[in-house]
Amino acid sequence: MSGYGKITPEIAAELRSAIGAKNVVYEDRDVLENYACDTAGKIFARDPEAVVRPENTEQVSAVMRIAGKYRLPVTPRAAGSGLAGAAIPVFGGIVLSIEKMNRILEIDPVNRAAIVEPGVVTNDLCKAAAEKGFLYAGYPMSTETSFIGGNVATNAGGGKVVRYGSTRRHVLGLEVVLPSGSVVRLGGKFRKDTWGYSLLQLMVGSEGTLGIVTKIIVNLEPLPGKTVNLLAAYSDLDAMVLSVAEVVKSGAKMISCEFFDRFSAKVTTDYLGTRLPCQDRAEAYLLIQLEGEREEELEAAYEKVGTLCMNLGAMEVFVAENRIDSAALWNVRQNLAEGMRVYDPYCSLSGDLVVPLSAVPRMMKIIDEVSKKRNVRVGNMGHIADGNLHPLAVKPNGMTPEEWGTYAEEYFQELITESVKLGGVGSGEHGVGFLKLPALLSTKTPEEQEIHRAVKLAFDPQEILNPGKLIRRPRGADMP
Amino acid sequence: MSGYGKITPEIAAELRSAIGAKNVVYEDRDVLENYACDTAGKIFARDPEAVVRPENTEQVSAVMRIAGKYRLPVTPRAAGSGLAGAAIPVFGGIVLSIEKMNRILEIDPVNRAAIVEPGVVTNDLCKAAAEKGFLYAGYPMSTETSFIGGNVATNAGGGKVVRYGSTRRHVLGLEVVLPSGSVVRLGGKFRKDTWGYSLLQLMVGSEGTLGIVTKIIVNLEPLPGKTVNLLAAYSDLDAMVLSVAEVVKSGAKMISCEFFDRFSAKVTTDYLGTRLPCQDRAEAYLLIQLEGEREEELEAAYEKVGTLCMNLGAMEVFVAENRIDSAALWNVRQNLAEGMRVYDPYCSLSGDLVVPLSAVPRMMKIIDEVSKKRNVRVGNMGHIADGNLHPLAVKPNGMTPEEWGTYAEEYFQELITESVKLGGVGSGEHGVGFLKLPALLSTKTPEEQEIHRAVKLAFDPQEILNPGKLIRRPRGADMP
Repeated sequence: MSGYGKITPEIAAELRSAIGAKNVVYEDRDVLENYACDTAGKIFARDPEAVVRPENTEQVSAVMRIAGKYRLPVTPRAAGSGLAGAAIPVFGGIVLSIEKMNRILEIDPVNRAAIVEPGVVTNDLCKAAAEKGFLYAGYPMSTETSFIGGNVATNAGGGKVVRYGSTRRHVLGLEVVLPSGSVVRLGGKFRKDTWGYSLLQLMVGSEGTLGIVTKIIVNLEPLPGKTVNLLAAYSDLDAMVLSVAEVVKSGAKMISCEFFDRFSAKVTTDYLGTRLPCQDRAEAYLLIQLEGEREEELEAAYEKVGTLCMNLGAMEVFVAENRIDSAALWNVRQNLAEGMRVYDPYCSLSGDLVVPLSAVPRMMKIIDEVSKKRNVRVGNMGHIADGNLHPLAVKPNGMTPEEWGTYAEEYFQELITESVKLGGVGSGEHGVGFLKLPALLSTKTPEEQEIHRAVKLAFDPQEILNPGKLIRRPRGADMP
Repeated sequence: MSGYGKITPEIAAELRSAIGAKNVVYEDRDVLENYACDTAGKIFARDPEAVVRPENTEQVSAVMRIAGKYRLPVTPRAAGSGLAGAAIPVFGGIVLSIEKMNRILEIDPVNRAAIVEPGVVTNDLCKAAAEKGFLYAGYPMSTETSFIGGNVATNAGGGKVVRYGSTRRHVLGLEVVLPSGSVVRLGGKFRKDTWGYSLLQLMVGSEGTLGIVTKIIVNLEPLPGKTVNLLAAYSDLDAMVLSVAEVVKSGAKMISCEFFDRFSAKVTTDYLGTRLPCQDRAEAYLLIQLEGEREEELEAAYEKVGTLCMNLGAMEVFVAENRIDSAALWNVRQNLAEGMRVYDPYCSLSGDLVVPLSAVPRMMKIIDEVSKKRNVRVGNMGHIADGNLHPLAVKPNGMTPEEWGTYAEEYFQELITESVKLGGVGSGEHGVGFLKLPALLSTKTPEEQEIHRAVKLAFDPQEILNPGKLIRRPRGADMP
């Protein structure tokens, strides 16, 4: 099989006639370059030859049929808030943006499910669910920008995984356009299913390489009760990790359990013009959100958790007494990435290590050592109860942004190698995308890679859907 | 490719030399016939040509290498408590029983994980976890007989799914011997993973057709608090379903929400020599278990739930005041299948429909209609909050057990067709196995079946692992 086809004016006309001229962009450089990369950074950008913005499932099918006819690469794109480059059209071709498929089709209280199109902003789904008395519990930190379709593609995590699990747990059903253009429906408005291979579960986290999700049935949870927020300061990381393990084991109803280190705290509080308690002495902080149905229950919960943390070596534990205090604490957490990006506009946000919780102290030491060795200044943070760390890496002085793009990924690859040695993986919620493909391949045996490829080909024998992601380069195509 | 090889005395010797003579059974009819079927029933039995009982991962690999060399079918077998015939060696060949791989290797409190071999009895895992202060929350109703490996193979459900989800949610990692004999490790002691296709999730529920699970890392939960049990009697099924939906939405901490109808209640209470309240008037019962940390919390919970049920049309709600009352209620629930089997030794337990909760009343009416039409007496029960119904079907008078085997599966196939029309599936926790393959195929499009086959071939190009299950007959082999 030879390489990929190119989009000629004739093919562009065929696309226009299939899905409407207004939904096809061709030869308009200004628009095309807006679809050249995601939040991975402009240095990784590749211009597509065309952008299509279908309005419904039938139009997605029509695009895939045309793409199949000419073997055109198709890169699905949600909000472009991904950090791993999964939406970068590595081989050019078509970017298929689902931005126009953004309706909340149904909120079904009896079945505790919502049916949404993939272009719905995650936060809009959260709000619509809340209006009906429900929680949508998938909650990436990018909830105000990301699309639910992108969340499904990366099995997005975020700040509430310790309580509710990743996006995977909340996907009950999918409508998917296969690379052939056919439509399949997987799962439904139910929570038990052992009726053949779970193609539903396989689709979640497959980063748009197996099919294009056109409808999603999500699980809704009852709204949580009252919450309280605790900030615990630590000088010792082992003590912090042990605290997390014991708090989880205690059955305390944690909604979030976030960590950030001294450097990321300093940079962010400087940016915000604020301060945290103990900031002169603390090596790291835990920010814990607890839930309770009534006031007394909450009080009992924060007493128990606070005492646990203190007994296990926290320097201090602060309870946010009111909404203003709580908002101030979360404001720091939510601005960590922004703070680091202001400190260094080239700060790389793409680190997304996962290790067993018990290995977190060791992983933190390795991050320190590798960062020193490679002259990378790092602000460490993450969803610690899940063993999910995001080292935010500052570009060393004197390096160009382009050099840093390559250098940073080599740096992360070394950390990923160590993470895998500790029984972990290279991504917990961002995905592999374009940036981490070499690292992924370095952690999988040839036989595992073969299985990955065969699974891919089961869905996409022409390798037209999001090529250059998750598996080694497509047959007959040179990796750019 | 031609059909499957046969096990000659030379191949039997090769197996013995690879894994030890004591772990190979060949030509001993008395033993072989014990591995000819699972709980699907003896009428579906097929004798294997050999049974192997490997003691470790290496021996499982060795068996698969020999099987690959001669293209011998290998049917993995756990406890044989499955109801769908997944452990029936349809093409003869080897039954690979994991009964000797039954060690609990580790309970890891910091990472809230246990590592177990697949032959561990589920209940033994539950007990070992409880001793360390944890709950293993996968909980099939057959917990005292089933093996955890079988639970993974069928994505087992049970009585606590409404709270904790199916087995899938509790599988963090797997060691798997592939049909080639190679060993892969998927996942680990962590809860976030978007590092390539989720072969882990694909493996769960694949009924031993893609690989043989040799180690399992399971999630452990904190132990639940105190519990209370409520029995609500209904004369109206719509009212019952609405109650379930509202109780779930209320955020009440339900651990279980079980349903059984008038007929199954009568048969079972007759068998046990006991009675339930309202038994002369109730069409159906809900048995609800609620959790609370403290006594007052429990009281508030059962007041709320009881009032909800009464307001929505329950005839009566009874709160079990003590452990004896609770045990008596659960004794009825746990003996429903046994009660029906005593009433009719040929009662089929293989029904396992799932529909959206809102469609449960309609599905119940359809079960009634189809049963009357086909002259099948049915006791209905199930995990109602999950929309999971188990109609227990009594053999009509005058039918031989063999006739009934076929007739019952045709009856269930009609119900499955209706279930799929209502947006459901044909199995929630038993799996497809041998019995439900025709029904599965009738609900999948040719393209979906092709994807299933291609996924299967990605792992098992020779189609030696559990052939005759989940996909149409293997290439070159006649379906028996």
